[in-house]
Amino acid sequence: MAKDMTLLWGSGSPPCWRVMIVLEEKNLQGYNSKLLSFEKMEHKSQQVLDINPRGQLPSFKDGDKIINESIGACLYLENQYKSQGTKLIPDSPAEQALMYQRMMEGNTLMQKIATVLYYHMFVPEGERHDSAVKRNRENLTTELQLWEKYLENVAAGSYLAGAFSLADVVVYPSLAYAFQYGLSAERYPKIAKYLNLLKDRPSIKTTWPQKWFQHEQRAEMLKEI
Amino acid sequence: MAKDMTLLWGSGSPPCWRVMIVLEEKNLQGYNSKLLSFEKMEHKSQQVLDINPRGQLPSFKDGDKIINESIGACLYLENQYKSQGTKLIPDSPAEQALMYQRMMEGNTLMQKIATVLYYHMFVPEGERHDSAVKRNRENLTTELQLWEKYLENVAAGSYLAGAFSLADVVVYPSLAYAFQYGLSAERYPKIAKYLNLLKDRPSIKTTWPQKWFQHEQRAEMLKEI
Repeated sequence: MAKDMTLLWGSGSPPCWRVMIVLEEKNLQGYNSKLLSFEKMEHKSQQVLDINPRGQLPSFKDGDKIINESIGACLYLENQYKSQGTKLIPDSPAEQALMYQRMMEGNTLMQKIATVLYYHMFVPEGERHDSAVKRNRENLTTELQLWEKYLENVAAGSYLAGAFSLADVVVYPSLAYAFQYGLSAERYPKIAKYLNLLKDRPSIKTTWPQKWFQHEQRAEMLKEI
Repeated sequence: MAKDMTLLWGSGSPPCWRVMIVLEEKNLQGYNSKLLSFEKMEHKSQQVLDINPRGQLPSFKDGDKIINESIGACLYLENQYKSQGTKLIPDSPAEQALMYQRMMEGNTLMQKIATVLYYHMFVPEGERHDSAVKRNRENLTTELQLWEKYLENVAAGSYLAGAFSLADVVVYPSLAYAFQYGLSAERYPKIAKYLNLLKDRPSIKTTWPQKWFQHEQRAEMLKEI
């Protein structure tokens, strides 16, 4: 039951957003939702460390069952609430295969975005190189071109693996994040179309990162990617 | 059916080994198995690129369904062959939650091992720093101490998430890999016990990387981790 569930999350974090979308899709509104601040380092606070030794968000509990890994939590919730809300793992072998493939590729996508955006946080000053920045950006371009191709036939009702599925749950937040950081709709028209087709879906609209509304201008770090 | 399946793989690659273990556990022997050589760059050959634009191994096909992401392929095979061979996703909510958590953490573990072992391949010469090497090694130590703790109650018949499951399928190859590169059984006795308890399990024994038998001495890169 939703009231036995607790999600500790940070606004604008794609992995957190994944879990929030699944909770909406599975009609599990009413869970304990605790918004924490990355800026204040609350992801390293005792309340997080108590359930997540890695000190990361999301941190998620269902009763005394802990699943902090976002894709793990999504798979768990879908399996525990199969017949409730939206069915997020398709039955047809072809769609299921594609769904698992894109869902797991979503991890690589997020990693490549983070490598570019957080270079200055991940890499100490004395170890930074322009050549690494350039290579990371090129790797992200190659990655995004792959997703642009995956989405070439995107249309209302047909997303990453047929109907809306865990593939979209995992990937959508990362692509939206890239646009928040300035990714160009002209360079990536299919990705832009995909984002637009899903932005008013209730599970996504309700959980859209509030802090993204607070900035009048989007960041521009990924504008030239 | 196994004869419609094709696995392109490289010896000693933990992600490839995961898929091979699942194929054994689900009694899917008889698939088309093609061993390729990383040393000869065969993972970038056309036969791989035709089904895997990332040019990575494993590359896996079931008929015309492609799932190259190793965890994706494991989830797909378990779901398609639920009642065949070993059940790899437990039913009990508590074990299932733990299984998904450890399975996904297995990705992080593998990444941290690779960051240490392949530093000289991933990072061009002019960008290398001793401070980065040191930090990567410390991060891997912290990671392995976490797994040592996760395994503190390991015993025959009780592994990462109760009975043998996809958590073990994903994590075992990475831990065995770390030992192949010299990880110390004295420093990590629970991990060593876990590896030992499972090494004669038929699915693991049959698929043990042949090339690891060819070296008389183990590499020692992780001896001091």
